Amino acid sequence: MKTFGQFLQSGDWKGEKHVPVIHAPEKVKAGETFDLRVSIGDEIPHPNTLEHYISWIKVFFFQEGGKFPVELAEFKFTAHGEGGNFSEPAGTTKVKLDKAGTIYAISYCNIHGVWENSQEIVVE
Amino acid sequence: MKTFGQFLQSGDWKGEKHVPVIHAPEKVKAGETFDLRVSIGDEIPHPNTLEHYISWIKVFFFQEGGKFPVELAEFKFTAHGEGGNFSEPAGTTKVKLDKAGTIYAISYCNIHGVWENSQEIVVE
Amino acid sequence: MKTFGQFLQSGDWKGEKHVPVIHAPEKVKAGETFDLRVSIGDEIPHPNTLEHYISWIKVFFFQEGGKFPVELAEFKFTAHGEGGNFSEPAGTTKVKLDKAGTIYAISYCNIHGVWENSQEIVVE
Amino acid sequence: MKTFGQFLQSGDWKGEKHVPVIHAPEKVKAGETFDLRVSIGDEIPHPNTLEHYISWIKVFFFQEGGKFPVELAEFKFTAHGEGGNFSEPAGTTKVKLDKAGTIYAISYCNIHGVWENSQEIVVE
Ligand SMILES: [Fe+3]
Ligand SMILES: [Fe+3]
Ligand SMILES: [Fe+3]
Ligand SMILES: [Fe+3]
Repeated sequence: MKTFGQFLQSGDWKGEKHVPVIHAPEKVKAGETFDLRVSIGDEIPHPNTLEHYISWIKVFFFQEGGKFPVELAEFKFTAHGEGGNFSEPAGTTKVKLDKAGTIYAISYCNIHGVWENSQEIVVE
Repeated sequence: MKTFGQFLQSGDWKGEKHVPVIHAPEKVKAGETFDLRVSIGDEIPHPNTLEHYISWIKVFFFQEGGKFPVELAEFKFTAHGEGGNFSEPAGTTKVKLDKAGTIYAISYCNIHGVWENSQEIVVE
Repeated sequence: MKTFGQFLQSGDWKGEKHVPVIHAPEKVKAGETFDLRVSIGDEIPHPNTLEHYISWIKVFFFQEGGKFPVELAEFKFTAHGEGGNFSEPAGTTKVKLDKAGTIYAISYCNIHGVWENSQEIVVE
Repeated sequence: MKTFGQFLQSGDWKGEKHVPVIHAPEKVKAGETFDLRVSIGDEIPHPNTLEHYISWIKVFFFQEGGKFPVELAEFKFTAHGEGGNFSEPAGTTKVKLDKAGTIYAISYCNIHGVWENSQEIVVE
């Protein structure tokens, strides 16, 4: 039997449309606010219908030398055609960090499960 | 006894720091994706501590001539100082609309309750 | 133009299947944990399909003499037939209150919008 | 660098207070609704303060022979002392399954990160 952690799939987002893309600076200043963007389908769009859609992206941060990841934000994409309205799987928030570490994005497709990606960030 | 709807406060975001600000074009094309941004504290920053913070902003759309609002997206801001990390109350997503209507943003402060704002948008 | 608060519909849950039902004791002791249950469709089941479903129920508490409601919990029902799996719109959590007040349940149907209900509770 | 899946900790919930407990029947009938409960701290209570709390529990189901887990429900516990109100980390929802498989519960403590547990269920 698998652990849940083993269900988190990954890959190159340029070829696999479920992998979340992390758009963050390579380097930021400690305690300075910056835009953190995550998105899905930058290269190959993912379907967005009532039957098949990206439901959410969560963002965590793991501080170098830390013990546990901290959740920074969660984006829910909740319209998939109701009344002709759609929200697409891209979310931005503003973030302040104290030390260098790794940003993780986790996403969920209602048909194809849970995906992850990560990116290191220098904080100085 | 109040209905819950009567708890939704509003005001001018330039003077009242809890009112969500909606950043959307005045006019978009039907079925064309655009960036929809909501934020709190554009003029007067809201506190962001473990004791007092903005927890979430939800975005709904009410189509002109429609009957019910459709939820477009929800943003959760989940870090308020844990390990020196913070997420600030600003969220952007991508949206496609079919007809003109009104965008609503609803936000929640863990101390000061529920707030709303709205903005009309032309879809052509 | 309506405020968002004006979109929150209500009614008798025995006749209107969207109205959330609040299952709570009439009286509890201050600081003592009790089960708080909210559900939809106790009398008339609501559809649960990929096209039409109850997405979430939020629960707030407004303390008598207080100024703002406090969010107690949120339940998301996220499976509507994927792989033959379904979650139905009923959620229970455990709650501790300090003073008497009113419990509010807010729910969202992806087709029929936002609904509310309330129930007073004595805390002694 | 770790993958995010590697951050999901587990253990015996009788000794480790962060591990979610799954309360489900061992055997259910296909398509028949049953109560699925998840909770934290059944044996050793977890703190519930503004500084340290369980934020959410997500529930997934992985069907035997399937490829991807399906999210069944999410519970957010949002009151940690505001106005003397608390929600404790226990959530119940109603579920219908089609085939046997494994239920997974994932939880998040704002200080101690992400935890998981699982339980097999026979569906006949
Ligand atoms: Fe997919
Ligand atoms: Fe506030
Ligand atoms: Fe409905
Ligand atoms: Fe903890």
